Amino acid sequence: MNAVIGILGGMGPLATVDFVEKIIDQTPAERDQDHLPLIIHSVPQIPDRTACLVSQHESPLPDMVRGINTLVGAGVSVIVIPCNTAHYWYDGLTQASAVPILHIADACAQKLVDEGIKTVGLMATDGTVKAGFYPKKLARSGIQMVLPEEALQRNIMHGIYQVKSGKIEAGGEILAGCMEQMLRLGVEKVILGCTEIPLALERIESPLVDRGIDATQALAAACVRWHGAFRQRSVA
Amino acid sequence: MNAVIGILGGMGPLATVDFVEKIIDQTPAERDQDHLPLIIHSVPQIPDRTACLVSQHESPLPDMVRGINTLVGAGVSVIVIPCNTAHYWYDGLTQASAVPILHIADACAQKLVDEGIKTVGLMATDGTVKAGFYPKKLARSGIQMVLPEEALQRNIMHGIYQVKSGKIEAGGEILAGCMEQMLRLGVEKVILGCTEIPLALERIESPLVDRGIDATQALAAACVRWHGAFRQRSVA
Repeated sequence: MNAVIGILGGMGPLATVDFVEKIIDQTPAERDQDHLPLIIHSVPQIPDRTACLVSQHESPLPDMVRGINTLVGAGVSVIVIPCNTAHYWYDGLTQASAVPILHIADACAQKLVDEGIKTVGLMATDGTVKAGFYPKKLARSGIQMVLPEEALQRNIMHGIYQVKSGKIEAGGEILAGCMEQMLRLGVEKVILGCTEIPLALERIESPLVDRGIDATQALAAACVRWHGAFRQRSVA
Repeated sequence: MNAVIGILGGMGPLATVDFVEKIIDQTPAERDQDHLPLIIHSVPQIPDRTACLVSQHESPLPDMVRGINTLVGAGVSVIVIPCNTAHYWYDGLTQASAVPILHIADACAQKLVDEGIKTVGLMATDGTVKAGFYPKKLARSGIQMVLPEEALQRNIMHGIYQVKSGKIEAGGEILAGCMEQMLRLGVEKVILGCTEIPLALERIESPLVDRGIDATQALAAACVRWHGAFRQRSVA
């Protein structure tokens, strides 16, 4: 029995590839056949998530539900979505899905609990901050989240856009400055809740990267954990 | 109308990711939505291709056919397989598939024709050489292929195994030496018909990389071309 993991990707395409690499990196494997079975739906023709949340543009939900249905039809046993902002529609997606969807904030919470962290900051897009699921999910695990105030959030968004437009070093410097400000608020770690952020911090070799929790990486770890648990259940 | 490309991957998982990155790199895109819609079947629980061809182990064909059926069921309009050796079973796969499968050797032939190349060498696994599709396919485009003699092929295979086992620099040096030998036979270019080869040559910064035709990259270019032609047909 082979439990296939479905990835609802394409938001964006490169973030999807980055996520799959993170799964491969974290899988204990000696040969091809030891790696996790994946079906990846990377169809980027989905309305922009942040544009919908911030400017009331067209909702991406119907297209995402179509993607979920395709994955379920292809026989996956669980679904993950390597895009923070998309989790705003998590409830609608789980209602539409015949299989469970692992939540990216639960994956981060698990990592923070494992490390014994009690206070954490958030660096993410305006859409993810507005979606509000991070503080809610983390509170359930007894973790207090500190959100950036308005000027700092504007600066984080500016840094993310710089990276998205290809100015990775410039964006990295801005984001490293923002992260320093977040850490000065007294949090132990900062959730890097947008693919562009760890990428840019690594590019400028910022030592702050060690104080960050890479949300995509946490979700990849959750996939490896899920598959390990599934294997054990099959053997038992 | 959105024509989705199906990727029968997982052979191996990292080669699949590398292939998707090559598609993204070659796609003229300004935003997420401009990228090609892909469904990627990366289920590596498939019997080893080379082991089957060289030592009569279990055939990977039934599992590959299941993957094709899943992709067709998910609604793809065309399929590609980013694994050279797997093309040994191309005829069986196309017979089982309700949609066309682009052949990796046709993609290489197209690139060679575009560049006006008439003679080419091959560096690939024993399985791919034994499969024999490269010289046949290229001959149809008027391109003459020179195959490595036995001792050279053994050395190529040795270099590939070094890379697979993580000794990328050592493998790269061996493969660069093999490529020099191939070029001395008088061919204009050499098809790098195994994912490990371009990767290792790039790692050691070998100038010979410019004399190689990266088969995976050629297949990625074929995907971009296929999708462009499909869009034009839809508009017409």
